[in-house]
Amino acid sequence: MGDIGRRIALRRQQLGLTREEVAARAGTAPAYLQYVEDKPAAAPGTGFLLMLANALETTVAELRGGGADLPPGVGRAAYHPELLELDPQECRARLSTHGVGRVAVSTPHGPAIVPVNYAVVDGAVVFRTAPDAAPALAAGTEAAFEVDHIDEALSQGWSVLVVGRAEHVTDPAAIQHLADEARTGPWAGGDRELWVRIAPERITGRRIQVR
Amino acid sequence: MGDIGRRIALRRQQLGLTREEVAARAGTAPAYLQYVEDKPAAAPGTGFLLMLANALETTVAELRGGGADLPPGVGRAAYHPELLELDPQECRARLSTHGVGRVAVSTPHGPAIVPVNYAVVDGAVVFRTAPDAAPALAAGTEAAFEVDHIDEALSQGWSVLVVGRAEHVTDPAAIQHLADEARTGPWAGGDRELWVRIAPERITGRRIQVR
Repeated sequence: MGDIGRRIALRRQQLGLTREEVAARAGTAPAYLQYVEDKPAAAPGTGFLLMLANALETTVAELRGGGADLPPGVGRAAYHPELLELDPQECRARLSTHGVGRVAVSTPHGPAIVPVNYAVVDGAVVFRTAPDAAPALAAGTEAAFEVDHIDEALSQGWSVLVVGRAEHVTDPAAIQHLADEARTGPWAGGDRELWVRIAPERITGRRIQVR
Repeated sequence: MGDIGRRIALRRQQLGLTREEVAARAGTAPAYLQYVEDKPAAAPGTGFLLMLANALETTVAELRGGGADLPPGVGRAAYHPELLELDPQECRARLSTHGVGRVAVSTPHGPAIVPVNYAVVDGAVVFRTAPDAAPALAAGTEAAFEVDHIDEALSQGWSVLVVGRAEHVTDPAAIQHLADEARTGPWAGGDRELWVRIAPERITGRRIQVR
């Protein structure tokens, strides 16, 4: 299996789609999709990759693995940008139910910003971590948690900041409730059984919009 | 002009491409592209949008504006993730020359994480801000600066953390040098003439990779 085949197969699994379903979405034969997945020598054309990327809700560049080593946001500034405050309701809507955010912590080596897979449960930001991992250090402090979306296409974007007291969740019933409600686990895998909860005291956000 | 037309036209400008060039890339007629850009009633088919999104180096979803209000990283964890440390050289390569990163600051309202458009000049992270904006508060402190890339397609990603003393750059010759070397300005626009420079004392990074 080549790199592109591996990415296609993994993406199918992520979406919970069979090969037959993806082939149907892309308007191709399952046998050809299998060929592209299995044979490193397969060199699918751009037209095929376009349909396939769309079927897999991603881009041709992602399937090819290009750009994955670069940070987002390399576009130039737009001509007439506008910076707008988001109201708390809009901020909460953008936090959504789960995703990847970042928490600021103080470590023995200095300050740090660390990405976490979070969920919003009962209005609070929660994430799972390991007791010896950096995100665990947020507990017991006034914590900053940030989520953003960078719109490469238009050099615009938004960010939402949640500030509040972070604490370990230790009550077994509360942990069970979080485990039931959180829709995602840590992408990093491994043993991450410490739950941290940030009760928002202040939610603010801003949006850069192209006029 | 409708929303989709606006996004297409802006994206063309971002890439510095004429309508003719984009039409050629997408294999369509400039007149039809103009029609789609100008008429809110135009309802281009998915096949056309696929070619167009590829020509504009973006996705159909971005052109349609879908998902732009949600945080990234809503996928489930991969089956066999692996967490790897990045060596300093890899970290520097991923910082690249410019992009969008995030700086942690202490504000009068508590801790904050704020996105900034940064550049790497002479090995240091630099960004422009306004004297009364939150990122300016990093100056004079031991600052944390983070860059990451979330790979939606595979529920994997990486992050790089730079820690170092942040300072205002006040010397006119040094400011001119930064202005010459930095490849991007703040997307937020406006008067952002205060340069902040973080000299890295420690660069660390990690990668979540799907086996």
